[in-house]
Amino acid sequence: MEQTRLDTGRIRAARRLIDPVFLDTPLYRCEALEPGLGCAVSVKLETANPVRSFKGRGTEVVASLLGGEGAREVVCASAGNLGQALAWSGRGRGLGVRVVASRFATRAKLDRIRALGATLELVDGDHELARERAAEIARYDGIRLVEDSLDIETCEGAATIGLELADAAPSFDAVLIALGGGALATGVGHVLKALAPGIEVICVQPLGAPAMTRSWRQRRVVTTESADTIADGVAGRFPIPAVLDDLLLVADDAVLVQEASIIAGMRMLHDHAGLVVEPSAALGIAAVLEDRDRFAGRHVATVVCGSNVDVDAYHRWIGAARGKT
Amino acid sequence: MEQTRLDTGRIRAARRLIDPVFLDTPLYRCEALEPGLGCAVSVKLETANPVRSFKGRGTEVVASLLGGEGAREVVCASAGNLGQALAWSGRGRGLGVRVVASRFATRAKLDRIRALGATLELVDGDHELARERAAEIARYDGIRLVEDSLDIETCEGAATIGLELADAAPSFDAVLIALGGGALATGVGHVLKALAPGIEVICVQPLGAPAMTRSWRQRRVVTTESADTIADGVAGRFPIPAVLDDLLLVADDAVLVQEASIIAGMRMLHDHAGLVVEPSAALGIAAVLEDRDRFAGRHVATVVCGSNVDVDAYHRWIGAARGKT
Repeated sequence: MEQTRLDTGRIRAARRLIDPVFLDTPLYRCEALEPGLGCAVSVKLETANPVRSFKGRGTEVVASLLGGEGAREVVCASAGNLGQALAWSGRGRGLGVRVVASRFATRAKLDRIRALGATLELVDGDHELARERAAEIARYDGIRLVEDSLDIETCEGAATIGLELADAAPSFDAVLIALGGGALATGVGHVLKALAPGIEVICVQPLGAPAMTRSWRQRRVVTTESADTIADGVAGRFPIPAVLDDLLLVADDAVLVQEASIIAGMRMLHDHAGLVVEPSAALGIAAVLEDRDRFAGRHVATVVCGSNVDVDAYHRWIGAARGKT
Repeated sequence: MEQTRLDTGRIRAARRLIDPVFLDTPLYRCEALEPGLGCAVSVKLETANPVRSFKGRGTEVVASLLGGEGAREVVCASAGNLGQALAWSGRGRGLGVRVVASRFATRAKLDRIRALGATLELVDGDHELARERAAEIARYDGIRLVEDSLDIETCEGAATIGLELADAAPSFDAVLIALGGGALATGVGHVLKALAPGIEVICVQPLGAPAMTRSWRQRRVVTTESADTIADGVAGRFPIPAVLDDLLLVADDAVLVQEASIIAGMRMLHDHAGLVVEPSAALGIAAVLEDRDRFAGRHVATVVCGSNVDVDAYHRWIGAARGKT
């Protein structure tokens, strides 16, 4: 295949930079989910670690390399999970971490960023404004800006999940991946296309934040005026051209799902798998719920990419969904 | 130390009999729990597998050995988790599994036992009656009875958790273990005393089902007339003498906790760690909540041993607890 920016050898090497607490995460069949979905389902669980999301894989690579270069400080924009993970990785290496986030971000994520010792700055706008502000800080203070999905370490860190999935192939024939900025999708997709090309790589994004999916479909960057979804982790509006180029090479499909399906997916994962997940982590299940025929009789793996939720909102979501059935 | 029935070499060998899906489970700090507990807390998560409890480690050993002997069928009594795990392990090896349980057992557990293809028989009494009935079936039909905690495979399977904890020592200085029949406590305790003797082994049981703890304290078997706790996985009344003998050698302490503390522990694990756990799996957190001074400034590891709950009961428990604060 045509080359992405990622390199499989470097991804294998990245494993050695990542704290083992983030590696070799559980991958297992959840048969209790299957009657409701009509297909075999395996879960790749990225929430049982100190920051409750897969982002530690990438920030460990970033912080290891920065530590080697003698950097003292780093800044990123974050919807909450990258900031938490970077705060964790930086703290262990004496690296100062500054995080810029929307003041509308999930409160539990912001609280954890502060608790991990990072400096948090809130902007009065959405994630795209936070990205602008972080870039401004980096320029003004001359410190490294970590740009999720653009910076190759974030993609190759996430790609280590792909190595673990490829090791388990061919037990499943499709992988469902949350699509936001694209680090997770291009990372996992790159490795699967390289090592297990028979597996279908399906990206899933909320209908309310469809910029990257529309871009993938039109093979050019499409931005949106707004993003309206509870899946805060994937609510970007401005796809990064280089990431789109990679995604075009590794994704077999990109689908959009409704908010109601995301909530139904969260509830199924709670009730039948005993998993608390954030909305982005339920996108794969939502995709199956919206297109059962496509997956009937197949075996899908879904990456449960994060579990950082505001408890009250979470219970509103899954409680309301329960009331409806 | 004086010898338990367990053997560390055999426990290491047991790892090779156990499907890797049950091994090398996540072990990680949960800092978000710590302000509420006043000590450092690591979680050993035994719920991210196909049966949502640690019991697969033991049943994999049982079923592997039985398969080698050409056995066709096996029977056990179970509060629900052993039965599920044995059903899973037996199914993969063409071994027929019969499970006897109380008709008052957790419904979700009974449903999963059936879904996994085991034959389920319910008795109109508690777990101790189920144990009698399973023994009767074994005698009558001439098939192997798996007796949890008495059968060495169940202890040595559980003990593989101890190997993984010992590898991580000395990051923590105490391990909190749910105490029921004793397989988990004697298994983990044996390995820790052998490989990391500086770690305090603390067993935790509900005040409403205190038979083994009282037995440990009095150094002789003490039975109880009844068991009254939501922690269904540890609600036995008749401790097994050989298991008590082992427990006397490996446990540094055995403590009893109130139901309200178990519920508070479940809620903390949900709200601050994003973990759905069954009551037995919250016993360790409950023990810290009831004796903060003892653990202040220390680093404890707690084995989150299962997550099989009836969803409605679970929400009643954690919802009611939330309403109180």
